[in-house]
Amino acid sequence: MVSEAKAGHNFVNRPRLCDLKHLGRGRLEKMYRMLYENGPGNGTFMSLPFDQLVEHGAAHIFKWKKDSVADVAVTGRGSADPRTVIELANRGDFSAIVLHPGVVDKYQDLLRLDVPLIYKVDGHVTIPENPPMSATLGGVRDALRLGAAAVGMSFYVGSEMTREDMVRVGGLIVEAHEHGMPAVVWAYPRGPGVNEVGADSMYWVHYACVVAESLGADIIKTKFPAPVKDDKREAYFDYLKKIAKKTAEAEKYIELEPEEGGELTEDQHMHRVKLVLDAVPRSFVVVSGGPKIKGDPKKELIRTTRIVMRAGAEGRIIGRNFWGVPVDKGLEYARTVAEIMREPQYRRSF
Amino acid sequence: MVSEAKAGHNFVNRPRLCDLKHLGRGRLEKMYRMLYENGPGNGTFMSLPFDQLVEHGAAHIFKWKKDSVADVAVTGRGSADPRTVIELANRGDFSAIVLHPGVVDKYQDLLRLDVPLIYKVDGHVTIPENPPMSATLGGVRDALRLGAAAVGMSFYVGSEMTREDMVRVGGLIVEAHEHGMPAVVWAYPRGPGVNEVGADSMYWVHYACVVAESLGADIIKTKFPAPVKDDKREAYFDYLKKIAKKTAEAEKYIELEPEEGGELTEDQHMHRVKLVLDAVPRSFVVVSGGPKIKGDPKKELIRTTRIVMRAGAEGRIIGRNFWGVPVDKGLEYARTVAEIMREPQYRRSF
Amino acid sequence: MVSEAKAGHNFVNRPRLCDLKHLGRGRLEKMYRMLYENGPGNGTFMSLPFDQLVEHGAAHIFKWKKDSVADVAVTGRGSADPRTVIELANRGDFSAIVLHPGVVDKYQDLLRLDVPLIYKVDGHVTIPENPPMSATLGGVRDALRLGAAAVGMSFYVGSEMTREDMVRVGGLIVEAHEHGMPAVVWAYPRGPGVNEVGADSMYWVHYACVVAESLGADIIKTKFPAPVKDDKREAYFDYLKKIAKKTAEAEKYIELEPEEGGELTEDQHMHRVKLVLDAVPRSFVVVSGGPKIKGDPKKELIRTTRIVMRAGAEGRIIGRNFWGVPVDKGLEYARTVAEIMREPQYRRSF
Amino acid sequence: MVSEAKAGHNFVNRPRLCDLKHLGRGRLEKMYRMLYENGPGNGTFMSLPFDQLVEHGAAHIFKWKKDSVADVAVTGRGSADPRTVIELANRGDFSAIVLHPGVVDKYQDLLRLDVPLIYKVDGHVTIPENPPMSATLGGVRDALRLGAAAVGMSFYVGSEMTREDMVRVGGLIVEAHEHGMPAVVWAYPRGPGVNEVGADSMYWVHYACVVAESLGADIIKTKFPAPVKDDKREAYFDYLKKIAKKTAEAEKYIELEPEEGGELTEDQHMHRVKLVLDAVPRSFVVVSGGPKIKGDPKKELIRTTRIVMRAGAEGRIIGRNFWGVPVDKGLEYARTVAEIMREPQYRRSF
Amino acid sequence: MVSEAKAGHNFVNRPRLCDLKHLGRGRLEKMYRMLYENGPGNGTFMSLPFDQLVEHGAAHIFKWKKDSVADVAVTGRGSADPRTVIELANRGDFSAIVLHPGVVDKYQDLLRLDVPLIYKVDGHVTIPENPPMSATLGGVRDALRLGAAAVGMSFYVGSEMTREDMVRVGGLIVEAHEHGMPAVVWAYPRGPGVNEVGADSMYWVHYACVVAESLGADIIKTKFPAPVKDDKREAYFDYLKKIAKKTAEAEKYIELEPEEGGELTEDQHMHRVKLVLDAVPRSFVVVSGGPKIKGDPKKELIRTTRIVMRAGAEGRIIGRNFWGVPVDKGLEYARTVAEIMREPQYRRSF
Repeated sequence: MVSEAKAGHNFVNRPRLCDLKHLGRGRLEKMYRMLYENGPGNGTFMSLPFDQLVEHGAAHIFKWKKDSVADVAVTGRGSADPRTVIELANRGDFSAIVLHPGVVDKYQDLLRLDVPLIYKVDGHVTIPENPPMSATLGGVRDALRLGAAAVGMSFYVGSEMTREDMVRVGGLIVEAHEHGMPAVVWAYPRGPGVNEVGADSMYWVHYACVVAESLGADIIKTKFPAPVKDDKREAYFDYLKKIAKKTAEAEKYIELEPEEGGELTEDQHMHRVKLVLDAVPRSFVVVSGGPKIKGDPKKELIRTTRIVMRAGAEGRIIGRNFWGVPVDKGLEYARTVAEIMREPQYRRSF
Repeated sequence: MVSEAKAGHNFVNRPRLCDLKHLGRGRLEKMYRMLYENGPGNGTFMSLPFDQLVEHGAAHIFKWKKDSVADVAVTGRGSADPRTVIELANRGDFSAIVLHPGVVDKYQDLLRLDVPLIYKVDGHVTIPENPPMSATLGGVRDALRLGAAAVGMSFYVGSEMTREDMVRVGGLIVEAHEHGMPAVVWAYPRGPGVNEVGADSMYWVHYACVVAESLGADIIKTKFPAPVKDDKREAYFDYLKKIAKKTAEAEKYIELEPEEGGELTEDQHMHRVKLVLDAVPRSFVVVSGGPKIKGDPKKELIRTTRIVMRAGAEGRIIGRNFWGVPVDKGLEYARTVAEIMREPQYRRSF
Repeated sequence: MVSEAKAGHNFVNRPRLCDLKHLGRGRLEKMYRMLYENGPGNGTFMSLPFDQLVEHGAAHIFKWKKDSVADVAVTGRGSADPRTVIELANRGDFSAIVLHPGVVDKYQDLLRLDVPLIYKVDGHVTIPENPPMSATLGGVRDALRLGAAAVGMSFYVGSEMTREDMVRVGGLIVEAHEHGMPAVVWAYPRGPGVNEVGADSMYWVHYACVVAESLGADIIKTKFPAPVKDDKREAYFDYLKKIAKKTAEAEKYIELEPEEGGELTEDQHMHRVKLVLDAVPRSFVVVSGGPKIKGDPKKELIRTTRIVMRAGAEGRIIGRNFWGVPVDKGLEYARTVAEIMREPQYRRSF
Repeated sequence: MVSEAKAGHNFVNRPRLCDLKHLGRGRLEKMYRMLYENGPGNGTFMSLPFDQLVEHGAAHIFKWKKDSVADVAVTGRGSADPRTVIELANRGDFSAIVLHPGVVDKYQDLLRLDVPLIYKVDGHVTIPENPPMSATLGGVRDALRLGAAAVGMSFYVGSEMTREDMVRVGGLIVEAHEHGMPAVVWAYPRGPGVNEVGADSMYWVHYACVVAESLGADIIKTKFPAPVKDDKREAYFDYLKKIAKKTAEAEKYIELEPEEGGELTEDQHMHRVKLVLDAVPRSFVVVSGGPKIKGDPKKELIRTTRIVMRAGAEGRIIGRNFWGVPVDKGLEYARTVAEIMREPQYRRSF
Repeated sequence: MVSEAKAGHNFVNRPRLCDLKHLGRGRLEKMYRMLYENGPGNGTFMSLPFDQLVEHGAAHIFKWKKDSVADVAVTGRGSADPRTVIELANRGDFSAIVLHPGVVDKYQDLLRLDVPLIYKVDGHVTIPENPPMSATLGGVRDALRLGAAAVGMSFYVGSEMTREDMVRVGGLIVEAHEHGMPAVVWAYPRGPGVNEVGADSMYWVHYACVVAESLGADIIKTKFPAPVKDDKREAYFDYLKKIAKKTAEAEKYIELEPEEGGELTEDQHMHRVKLVLDAVPRSFVVVSGGPKIKGDPKKELIRTTRIVMRAGAEGRIIGRNFWGVPVDKGLEYARTVAEIMREPQYRRSF
């Protein structure tokens, strides 16, 4: 495996708002609020997504409970309570909060007016046999009415429904742009064919992100490109070799995998994230919280955030590791992540 | 199995209209009419649904017949006659009556103008191989023309059509809200995959309700989260363990089941309803009549209503147990249920 | 089998236009023209449908031929010629004629202006593997332009397409009503699942009619609820027993069947039609011509019309038994049927 | 087999424009241009269709080539070149030329302004597994912009897509009529079920035409109802017997077939075409060129045209037999066909 | 195999803008900019497409890297970077650049205002089981807003989705034309049935192009009609023989294939391209870069461009062979190709 990643980065290859004036003031002023006026600032991004009730079900409410419920009507009972998540957003300093249409509708009054809102327009429930495509639940007009700073949507590459999903997401993005609204795209490989050969692999994560930019995503939310599990390694390599018959460079992805049973070094991780960034140089890229952190979350958040930021990404979208713990803990974690993002070497001018 | 439910509740964790002013006067004044001006009042809810002709077929008309048919043109011949159901609504004191588009169209003149009407916009017939998704029969514009206080719709979580149903229901809710109309959502787990692992189970009922709130439901109609039947217990637990790999707390649902062959105590029932409520703290929640009552219906209605109200829910939607018996009997049952709801400990300010 | 039907009926349980003023003048004046100003009148209904070319194919033109074709350009060559059918409508006295969009478009000039026209907006061809759902061929706007008194449409209950058909028919009805146009619904059980357990059975005919009213049908065209054939009897009873687990009264339909191999008496037939009527008390109900009459059609038309009228139905839609014979014969049959409908005991005030 | 056809026909049973004034001047003046002002005139019709590139592929260009290509930019290189076909239309005297949207768009300048244009709005490519339904390529608005005299469309009866095709074609016809544009419908039996029992058989051709009229076709293009091939004869008869259980007259089609291995006489052919005409007495009917002519095309065109005209049809749509040969030859053939159509006995007043 | 191609061509059989005035100034002035004001000019066409990130995935970025990244924010890091491709377009002299909606949106500021832009409205990702039809990602309105000179779209002939794709592409073309925008159609045979008998074969390439013109394509992008591979030869010939039963000339394609295992001479290649051109005489035709060039790309580009131009085509669309190599190399290749196109014998007046 090749390791050509180097520490340090002057962001010359990352997007700047001043280079994107052609997007129009509508989108720019909203991006500015998220990247410079809120959260860690300086062009970095740390947002708090809360769409997991739809995505995973209600079990998250068992994660933790508040000891006192004196102000329950305003700040909620604990985990996965929209009021608690909003309390976290209000007390912390996030670039944006991400909420589903019905949650925005109902809880909008609790959210501070200066916290940018990403209206997550679609969702996907975890049920047996559900097709790999999100359902559009609301609309751009609704997002405007509710004072959103961006419209968020999920795009799944990798199933027989991908064509239909591209039509759906492409249409939403064009509509958002016509209304001066940035589009935040959760770009995920997902689907039977893709799963068999390594859904979160470097190849598929890479692919999902370039399609997202080609569709017009302003901010792309991606996962860490994960090493392929041992039992899928052969299928993954076989698939890449097949692809390489048309595009010889696909073989490169084979080199980017660690030895069988091996692990990636941090530099290798960083290098892989950097490859994603280099493929979408005018999309702001943020990386998800990654697999649920066991052991010391803070230490792990520091470690992964450093990888993300050193790679040059704009930041992260971290959900369960923030709101899945008591608010004060979540605030502490968020501060820790924000502190890293605020380090001078990660700041970028607009 | 854990039982942490406590008797008594000061509703601090239930929604209040005064906290929902951002929904706009259109929705609030209609909610107010249903929750405070009609029915048991004081923020409670007891409605009379009549959509079973479409859902179950015409057999309901054999349930009972009036002895005299002197005023049959106005008050009907007996069971499952829209005129009889409207007679019940007119003579009783319900928060709302629920009717299908064609029934509203035809029988609107018989319904007292002060009885709030929930225009049930969709329906689903019981036929072999019918897909688990309701058909939209009318529209929000029609509901406005017919003077409805809310639009009602069914949402099924649990099949390969769930994505399509989310699009359908989400679209109807957004349209209703744009016209100042509250949305009442019948949130049901249904579908092949779900049935195999316990459709009315705590896990699935819980899931259906959080999705409904995320879609923007103002009032959620749910079923009692039922203990899983012995023959599905293993599949249910296996499924939960699979889910728990991503969301560890899903194991909690295993604890919430009684011993094999055992039954839930009333406190345990109440606790489970409370868990549903806690997951949707800004949606008014009403519980269906439950399985058809054998034995003494009145006693059973009292028992189940107490569970519902002690849990903190806003009330109930009771159909067959009200209109499936002669009108005077139905009125008596409704009065009995309303009396419980009016007890001081269940009253809530707006 | 139970027989509780009684001769005589004062129509107190049938709809009256004066009770339906809330439907608006647009629909009422058209219903009035069909029920009082044309045909047998006095609130009864005898219409002449001609949609069988699409439904069954062209073979009907071989039924009979005119001896002379002197006026062929105006009155046609014989059976299944739109001009001949219109000649029949013009010379007879029908409540309405039913024609497909293209036929109305082409032959409208031949039809007397005082004959109400039901614009049959959809059709279904008999071909191998055709799905059980009609195709919408025209639209309400077209019906208005062509001076129709009602829009007619077919609704099939009983297949995997029923949901889609409910959406289609529900939408057409709402649109018709918005334009002051009554909706005439051909409500038929049809589809693989239903066929197996007795498509024209009491249970399914009953079900189809209540759904039609819930969709907003102003006039429902139903078939005679037929006794289930011996080879489907077991499947039918099994299905009813399965349904009875949720709705106990479904067992009632078992009692309504004659002995195996037995036949229904006229009173029993009448009782079954009456059950259909009682389930849709504000829809005008008309019964189809029934199975093609062998032997003496006149005698049979008299017999079945008496059953229909004694049951309290508004009348009949009779096609092939009217236009499938020479015009003079058809006029004679129509007069015979109308005479029965005009008998004092079947008249109803508006 | 019965033969009741007689020579001679006074067209009393054929449509006349003066009887169709209710269609409105928009449609009538365009029909008049096609039936009286161009082509053989006197109410007859001879049009030149050119949609075979889409329907069959490009191989037609190999049919023949011009010797000189001096004016190739205007009159084309030979067979299946739009310019050559237009040259033929310009130099000949056709009732109309039929072209696909893109061809009209590109070559419109070459077509004389006095040649009526049928804008063929749809097409179907011959590929393995392509469903039996044409794709709508353009629209009525486009046809208006391009100065068309009619909109043409194909309708296939006989597959599981027939319902969808009826919706498509019905919608196009209503839209055309709303814009004063006649609709020319290519009515073809096609589809797996139909093919098995004789696609071009008398029964299916008959059926396709009556549906086309019921959909509102102004001009119906039909094929010769062909005798069923020996290997499908049994399936055809079995199917007819099945149909005859509901519509006894379907047995008539069995009589209309020649003996096994036998051929139809010209009178029998004519009689069968006449049966088609009699079933759609207010649609102008034109018959396709029929199977590609081997041997002496001229002789065969004369023979088949006489059959068509004696039967009483308005004329023919002949493509490959006109443009599939050198222009001068095509003109000669067209003149020959036109001459027959112009014979006094085939002329009809408007 | 027959070889009747001759060197030299006076373009009398190729389209000229002056003959297409009926297309309207909107389309003509944009075509003029691409064919005369930019690129090699004189009516020839050399464009730079960049849609391969969506079509093939991100692996293209591994092709090559810039040594210096001094101006990375403006000119990119190397291969498959939109900035690099735009640098190439800005420094070279292309008739047009082809970009996806999101790429135009984001990088529009970098592109010189005098470089015509083809807004490629659709895309198709390479994933297992993806259906053979492109997804529409943007729209004509968006293309207008972004200052495009044409709308580009892919059309696949050869699968069960072809009907749907014809509707999609036909609709886009009509919409483009209504807005004075030319349509550039990538016409490709693709799909299971077609692949089995030789997707890029003469027969299928020929077919795809004639359908594209019939749909209204202004510029058709085609592939070289390739000789059928030995293992598909039999299936191809069998298929042609089957087609020949209806269209005898389909046998001609058999003659156009080289001997088994043989290769086409340049004249034969040219002749085959010429056959494509002759079938679409009013569409500008450009040929894709062809299979990835191994060995000396320059030599091969010269060779294939000479074939294309000698055949009379307007030019080429060359992607990977231009942007898949370092910019200076790409510019050199482009100059080489342009030089050929500028040779006097290939120039054509407008």
